[in-house]
Amino acid sequence: MLGIKNIASYLPQNKISNYDKKDQFELNDDFIENKIGVKAHALKEKDEKASDLCVKAFENLLQKENIDISLIDCCVVVTQNPDFNIPHTSAIVHGKLGFSQECASFDISLGCSGYVYGLSNIISFMKNNGLKKGLLFTADPYSEIVDSEDKNTALLFGDGATVTYITEEGIYIPKAFSFGTSGKDYKELICGDKLYMNGRAVFNFTATTIPKHIQNLLEKNGLEDSSIDKYILHQGSKYIVDTIRKRLKVDVQKVPFDMYDYGNTVSSSIPIILEKEMKIDTNRRFVISGFGVGLSWASAILEKN
Amino acid sequence: MLGIKNIASYLPQNKISNYDKKDQFELNDDFIENKIGVKAHALKEKDEKASDLCVKAFENLLQKENIDISLIDCCVVVTQNPDFNIPHTSAIVHGKLGFSQECASFDISLGCSGYVYGLSNIISFMKNNGLKKGLLFTADPYSEIVDSEDKNTALLFGDGATVTYITEEGIYIPKAFSFGTSGKDYKELICGDKLYMNGRAVFNFTATTIPKHIQNLLEKNGLEDSSIDKYILHQGSKYIVDTIRKRLKVDVQKVPFDMYDYGNTVSSSIPIILEKEMKIDTNRRFVISGFGVGLSWASAILEKN
Repeated sequence: MLGIKNIASYLPQNKISNYDKKDQFELNDDFIENKIGVKAHALKEKDEKASDLCVKAFENLLQKENIDISLIDCCVVVTQNPDFNIPHTSAIVHGKLGFSQECASFDISLGCSGYVYGLSNIISFMKNNGLKKGLLFTADPYSEIVDSEDKNTALLFGDGATVTYITEEGIYIPKAFSFGTSGKDYKELICGDKLYMNGRAVFNFTATTIPKHIQNLLEKNGLEDSSIDKYILHQGSKYIVDTIRKRLKVDVQKVPFDMYDYGNTVSSSIPIILEKEMKIDTNRRFVISGFGVGLSWASAILEKN
Repeated sequence: MLGIKNIASYLPQNKISNYDKKDQFELNDDFIENKIGVKAHALKEKDEKASDLCVKAFENLLQKENIDISLIDCCVVVTQNPDFNIPHTSAIVHGKLGFSQECASFDISLGCSGYVYGLSNIISFMKNNGLKKGLLFTADPYSEIVDSEDKNTALLFGDGATVTYITEEGIYIPKAFSFGTSGKDYKELICGDKLYMNGRAVFNFTATTIPKHIQNLLEKNGLEDSSIDKYILHQGSKYIVDTIRKRLKVDVQKVPFDMYDYGNTVSSSIPIILEKEMKIDTNRRFVISGFGVGLSWASAILEKN
């Protein structure tokens, strides 16, 4: 059944420590460790583009999965920091990796909800078009747009990329999706020349909307917390992950937190964690949930095949 | 069955005549009328953005279709000239039109192949998520990126937008899609600061690839030219439409040409013509085919329900 066969990710070795910014932004350790939850954020090379990060994630996938490149028939990139606006980054990735002319390629423009949407998109598209071997990339290098003087964003975002290999031998299968948009709030998280985030507004919206959204998804699918092994939430900040977990009344062990060493990687945050959690044999059922830019949110239930 | 219920488009009233550019670019009438096939190109207001063009197309849809805005559950925008890169334009359209929080919204980044891809995308996504009433917008205002001194592009592109209403009461149903990518050629049509097009390379590639691609699509679906009422090709230029038609050995009456008065509207070119052709009762089966930026191409067969 079409689903996730494997995931690989790429995080740049180069890290910027937030402890080095304590004076500049008047921070204390508690803020770094418990509020934002980012000790260091990963930074790509200046001339690296989204497509380069995708290629590196794919090279990591090849380390663990035997892939015949000529058989890849769908290549999707989720990004809002593309190499160029024209052409789409998926075409560049297609060219760099030497996929066949029969391979369908398109980009999806979404932020932190992008992985969940992208998963539904690529699987729906592949299913309806009889495609067999797809790659869903996420790469949103925010270092290109973050103002290093802006405390709201300069401490938070990290560069990274992931690739999810979708085949008919899926190990985790998405069982149900749910989506939402509040377009009237689009100005709360926006990039003209530089990224602007109204952190308070985005936090409040998320803390109110997402727990209910996840609860509704479970109810609609006849599931209770006891049937969910892990909740893999977008790693917006430690504070938002903790808040959603508490409002869901879910055990802390069931909600992985993993951004201390690389930051908020936007659409890559969920698959980076999923890559690790997929390896734990007892994980039979996940909830994944992304939320942010748009404002936009999306959640899904993944079940082990 | 999920399919195209209706289409509406918006073309700005303001037109720039190519006859006025005859001296600047050393043109003759034959070049204007028979080579590029653009007598005038449509130009949006300077401060209008892609989302504004989408809203105007939607207002035109409301003139002919009774739509309960609260029931729209999927809003997709195809563009490579978004209002911003962050957020996606579909969120802005969602906000401006007041869609519900349950409405899924995402952008697809593709150029001239974008309508065909977008149609497959939105229908696949809606089908797999049980959504009922979707809107597929196209809006790619190239006036934002065209260099008015560049003969290769300054005469060709026009601004415009379309919206396709997808419901279970579809009148035209996509029966088969086929997609292709040649990412290694991505630099032939690219936008850094300004749009660059290697017209010769794009033409040659298209003229070689697209006729075979369409023929393969027909063969794979057991169809011959006699079963196709119209071939609605992306209106790249008169010369490319004529060339594909001749190589397909298809009657000129079956291949609408319609860009004289507004230009190449990128992902909007196919739905602008489809809107007109849907009204002709004898049109039972269409081939639609888009090609360009990427390089990317996509074709589909649409059948009347």
